[in-house]
Amino acid sequence: MPEFDLIGTIRARAGAQRPDVALGIGDDAALLEPAPGMQLVACTDTLNAGVHFPRGTAPEAIGWKALAVNLSDLAAMGATPAWALLALSLPRDAAAFVAAMAEGFARLATQHGVTLVGGDTTRGPLALTVTALGQVPAGAALLRGGARAGDAVLVTGTLGDAAAGLALVQGRLSALAPAVAQVLRRRLDYPQPRVAAGLALRGIASACIDLSDGLLADLGHVCTRSGVGAEIDLEALPLSAALQAALAPADARQLALAGGDDYELCCSVPPVRLDAALAALRAAGCAGHVIGRITADAGVRVLDARGEPVTPARRGYEHFA
Amino acid sequence: MPEFDLIGTIRARAGAQRPDVALGIGDDAALLEPAPGMQLVACTDTLNAGVHFPRGTAPEAIGWKALAVNLSDLAAMGATPAWALLALSLPRDAAAFVAAMAEGFARLATQHGVTLVGGDTTRGPLALTVTALGQVPAGAALLRGGARAGDAVLVTGTLGDAAAGLALVQGRLSALAPAVAQVLRRRLDYPQPRVAAGLALRGIASACIDLSDGLLADLGHVCTRSGVGAEIDLEALPLSAALQAALAPADARQLALAGGDDYELCCSVPPVRLDAALAALRAAGCAGHVIGRITADAGVRVLDARGEPVTPARRGYEHFA
Repeated sequence: MPEFDLIGTIRARAGAQRPDVALGIGDDAALLEPAPGMQLVACTDTLNAGVHFPRGTAPEAIGWKALAVNLSDLAAMGATPAWALLALSLPRDAAAFVAAMAEGFARLATQHGVTLVGGDTTRGPLALTVTALGQVPAGAALLRGGARAGDAVLVTGTLGDAAAGLALVQGRLSALAPAVAQVLRRRLDYPQPRVAAGLALRGIASACIDLSDGLLADLGHVCTRSGVGAEIDLEALPLSAALQAALAPADARQLALAGGDDYELCCSVPPVRLDAALAALRAAGCAGHVIGRITADAGVRVLDARGEPVTPARRGYEHFA
Repeated sequence: MPEFDLIGTIRARAGAQRPDVALGIGDDAALLEPAPGMQLVACTDTLNAGVHFPRGTAPEAIGWKALAVNLSDLAAMGATPAWALLALSLPRDAAAFVAAMAEGFARLATQHGVTLVGGDTTRGPLALTVTALGQVPAGAALLRGGARAGDAVLVTGTLGDAAAGLALVQGRLSALAPAVAQVLRRRLDYPQPRVAAGLALRGIASACIDLSDGLLADLGHVCTRSGVGAEIDLEALPLSAALQAALAPADARQLALAGGDDYELCCSVPPVRLDAALAALRAAGCAGHVIGRITADAGVRVLDARGEPVTPARRGYEHFA
């Protein structure tokens, strides 16, 4: 199967139709028409086989996740996604893999009104690099650097499920009810980028980040960038019913603190806007939970039910550890 | 060396400073300010170690080339480059490699006024995926689909040098004078994207593509997209002095026809604008050469000095051959 049939396979699964795509897949580059008065929001993330998804992951999930992790970055900026590019490295031609991968990609793209406008297919170890492009009104983007002492720390959804899903795939968790296992595995394979939540938080949150490397690590980035610290209340961490069914409370909380791949949003909100933030998130269909507060002291500390500091076993995912 | 020092190493080598970068490296995404009335031009290309550059290639060259192949796509659209993102997969932390790679990237970025605004560093087999973003006045982009029967076919620069450089690295060429070997190797390692030539061809060329997979293959894409064919005059192919010193004429022409990695532009030009095209390319500092013509009959044919068809040994680079 020559490269150009691969491109046709992908082009047939390009997601949404958008009037602001003047030229999509098939030329040297795409031609796009940004809306006047908007800033362009651009990010890129790679998924490498065996690093970012376990070998044996369903092709549909690989395509979905490659886009999802990028839309999650746009969500953390409060941006509206618009366009994507996909650079695909394949060890060999694999028509069925590419078709299924592209289906998963297109399903998520369509949900978020995103068009795949270009890319590259080449030979190499299995890897997908997606570039996502979105738009935000000038000056309205959510940044990492705006957290202030006294702000509440919120997260969307529940934490730790994807890490439990990975433990399951890796054989470190067993004897789970099939329904529980399925929920955890789906959270690993099909993360849902919190785009509506990011939009809802514009004008309300003082800082925002998406949780890819784990809460402690990612909240740490917000704190470093903002010149502040944070306290997390261990018992306030939102845990899904599936995670609580799968693990003892202490283990579940450890995954919620330091497990990666949640793709929830973590934001800081000034106290006067806390009610507005919670209401906006509810309206966006994505519950928000207060899990702690921003402090003047640097560092991210974890407190138990009595307010005593505890030391987590792991602090997050280090790419080169 | 943790991931965040890698990011600092790269951030210190981000190329040009641009006033339209509202937020660069360091948040979940970059914030950019497209110019009013311009279309955004977007492309992405991956370089995998051992596929797109020989193992042992200088890190500076790897960084340079990763950007160059993308700027070449923008050049083929007649776009002005503006911003880039870099997704880097590294098998292990390698501070010296990353610093040198980023130096090469930044050197080319600075030459073309490009700012590196974001990216991703992750663990995996050595690979670089660059996304380049540029701008073009609405409606002015050069496309692949506009070639018409009777148009002249032009290429910039000389062809086949990079393929000879690769043959040299792979030990398939020997006994070359060091100066000759150096020229060929540099053409492989440090391709110069023809950005000025692409700008010069706006309003003149009827179609344009950059030569990455080889002349026959890439001109074939123009023909397919335009619903035409082409004839190439074998003796008109522009060959560098270095290539002619390194190879017998027939071998040199074979590389010029089917060798990849030239990153010259190939365009079609209506006869009435041919003088204008040649003058514009000269003014852009990049000689253009007429190598054939567009025909109504489909397919790309090669003609010898007597106008008789010849059959090339290879037609181009197939990623999955």
